[in-house]
Amino acid sequence: MYLISYDIENDRLRGRISKLLLRWGLHRVQYSVFMGTIGKESLLKLRKELDIYQRNRDWAPSDSILIVPIHQSHIKNIQAIGEWPNRWEEIKGAVNTLMI
Amino acid sequence: MYLISYDIENDRLRGRISKLLLRWGLHRVQYSVFMGTIGKESLLKLRKELDIYQRNRDWAPSDSILIVPIHQSHIKNIQAIGEWPNRWEEIKGAVNTLMI
Repeated sequence: MYLISYDIENDRLRGRISKLLLRWGLHRVQYSVFMGTIGKESLLKLRKELDIYQRNRDWAPSDSILIVPIHQSHIKNIQAIGEWPNRWEEIKGAVNTLMI
Repeated sequence: MYLISYDIENDRLRGRISKLLLRWGLHRVQYSVFMGTIGKESLLKLRKELDIYQRNRDWAPSDSILIVPIHQSHIKNIQAIGEWPNRWEEIKGAVNTLMI
């Protein structure tokens, strides 16, 4: 499982990247945080696509995307205060939905 | 190591929570994402403080805070596209700075 978060200043670029992440089967758990199960090979491909966005003219110098692996044994220790993401079972990988 | 991210609508409440996280020794790695090493006992105390904020009148129904543990062996696999957080070595826990 991976957590991917971004700080992208430009609305249009941010929208495009959020759509890309959703297309790769990740789930939006917060406004700028996505989570989901994704294979290592798929992650490499996703990473390449994200690198292309980094060369986009709308990419600001302070923009960033973080890709954080979450250990399988640690998923149960994730805590949420407030609204727990919808479809949490799916996000955790009970169902591995890679829709691309 | 933990990653803590939030979606907090109210500016003032968000500011107070960000200050709380920084006071607990976490580092801001993105606008709404914090990371750092924090012991299990300290995390329990921090969680209690965050729970109090959830009962604040400025807390919106859609607000959320996620607390995600990151396995020590996975830290080296964290990837950043764009701006890598300042003081990354410190964040990773080379120096465990709990300043409260």
